[in-house]
Amino acid sequence: MTALIGLDWGTTNARAMRFAADGSVAEIRERPLGILRVPGGDFPAAFAELAGDWRAEAPAAPVLMCGMIGSRQGWREASYATLPADAAALARALLPMPEIGGWIVPGISGESLAGAPDVIRGEETQALGVLAVLGTDTACLCMPGSHSKWVELRQGRLTRFATFMTGEAFAALRDHTILARMIEDAPHDPAAFAAGLARSAAPGGLLHHLFTVRTDGLFARLTPASAASFLSGLMLGNEMRDATAAFPAAEVVLVGSQALAAPYRAALEAAGRTARVVPGEEAVAAGLWRVAHAAGLAG
Amino acid sequence: MTALIGLDWGTTNARAMRFAADGSVAEIRERPLGILRVPGGDFPAAFAELAGDWRAEAPAAPVLMCGMIGSRQGWREASYATLPADAAALARALLPMPEIGGWIVPGISGESLAGAPDVIRGEETQALGVLAVLGTDTACLCMPGSHSKWVELRQGRLTRFATFMTGEAFAALRDHTILARMIEDAPHDPAAFAAGLARSAAPGGLLHHLFTVRTDGLFARLTPASAASFLSGLMLGNEMRDATAAFPAAEVVLVGSQALAAPYRAALEAAGRTARVVPGEEAVAAGLWRVAHAAGLAG
Repeated sequence: MTALIGLDWGTTNARAMRFAADGSVAEIRERPLGILRVPGGDFPAAFAELAGDWRAEAPAAPVLMCGMIGSRQGWREASYATLPADAAALARALLPMPEIGGWIVPGISGESLAGAPDVIRGEETQALGVLAVLGTDTACLCMPGSHSKWVELRQGRLTRFATFMTGEAFAALRDHTILARMIEDAPHDPAAFAAGLARSAAPGGLLHHLFTVRTDGLFARLTPASAASFLSGLMLGNEMRDATAAFPAAEVVLVGSQALAAPYRAALEAAGRTARVVPGEEAVAAGLWRVAHAAGLAG
Repeated sequence: MTALIGLDWGTTNARAMRFAADGSVAEIRERPLGILRVPGGDFPAAFAELAGDWRAEAPAAPVLMCGMIGSRQGWREASYATLPADAAALARALLPMPEIGGWIVPGISGESLAGAPDVIRGEETQALGVLAVLGTDTACLCMPGSHSKWVELRQGRLTRFATFMTGEAFAALRDHTILARMIEDAPHDPAAFAAGLARSAAPGGLLHHLFTVRTDGLFARLTPASAASFLSGLMLGNEMRDATAAFPAAEVVLVGSQALAAPYRAALEAAGRTARVVPGEEAVAAGLWRVAHAAGLAG
């Protein structure tokens, strides 16, 4: 029996989940069908590939989608909800997609730490899911990725968040500056990562420290195999300093894969915080179920 | 009469200068023959193209070269001199190039603000030239470029310097992140640049502020034509904060073209400093002449 069809539909990948009546995930699929990879922008065909058989078997089951699928580049644009937002607020703001018997969870806009706008799309659903997974109503989350998102939740509501472009800036600097010549593909090197974290706390600032990746290489203090890990430590150290200043919780919940969470955990611990990890897949499933429940669609 | 043939030979471009006996530049040429663009790495042929006729007309005139031509990727590697360094110290450390009756001015290695190594190659010659141009022996310089160099000179000697990868990081972020979609090629926009400078002083730090280039665009607070100038202000504001903390001089001499110097001047003035500009071409010519004089080669 299918009680809900959920989709976590991002920029690069799409994940479809079939929920049983008790909210557990009975079946899960991941496809490289992120919104920028859907052939010809044919979202109905991509949906059919992701979940068409489930839809046919359970025509009455609602479909709930979150992530970039609701962005301007996605299937249909869902206007941002505003802070503070709990599951009920998101449920009231769902964008109907009657052609598939479904809805899109809106993203949220808020104010950045600098007073400019800031936005999330997909992470709001994950964040509410984390509360369900942990059985709490208050938490500080860090969601690593190309753009890492820090989210504060109080009494079941998202109250604040901030985006850091750390991952994408790291990749651009690693691949498209003179540093590319100093860097070889290699497994994560925890010692070099820790050295990069330490460097980030030295005087001079990030734009100065970046050049030390080159000079440490020139003077054989850093090997090409360790340089990417060092650079990663440098970047994450900067994020940690600014993010922990804005989000002072002692414990931070890392939401994501173990591979992404490991360096973030090391960076958090170097910043004097404790970390626990909730897998992103588990968080988004719990979040979709929670929003569907709040909307009276399931559970 | 040719008293000296000077070359400022960088990564992208090469500039050749023919000096008269009074140290003035009688003739100047610039070619896209930077060390990474020399066909087949044939430096003798590139030298012939740049200055072969001058060499033939004045076979006794010494040749003095500075810049990346003395790097590991250049014609021949000139080991770094060390701080403090004046013209006499560089003159003693010249690398002979007997095949052209010439010498290469070594770069200088020092300690970065973070305690790692830092290096310059070419800027040492320009810096000494600035002293000659201004008729002083003490100055604080900022040399904008892909890697901007801040140099402190006291009593005719380079005493300290630091590199900021601002320009290259700016280009990588502008062209190779999601921000590229928000940015159109357009003339420099001083108001957007000033807004970027102001943003750089807000809470959250550079990696957070980068994302506000996107969100300001999403919410129509920043046009694609202004976004590159805003991003440039954001980056230069960061450099200014860290560089002026390390180099507290009230007046900063900007060394470079008017086009590069204009935004740096605005950033310096926003940071409470006064700026004056010395053209880079003039500085390097004066520096080559000064080092040649100290080496007993000319003047």
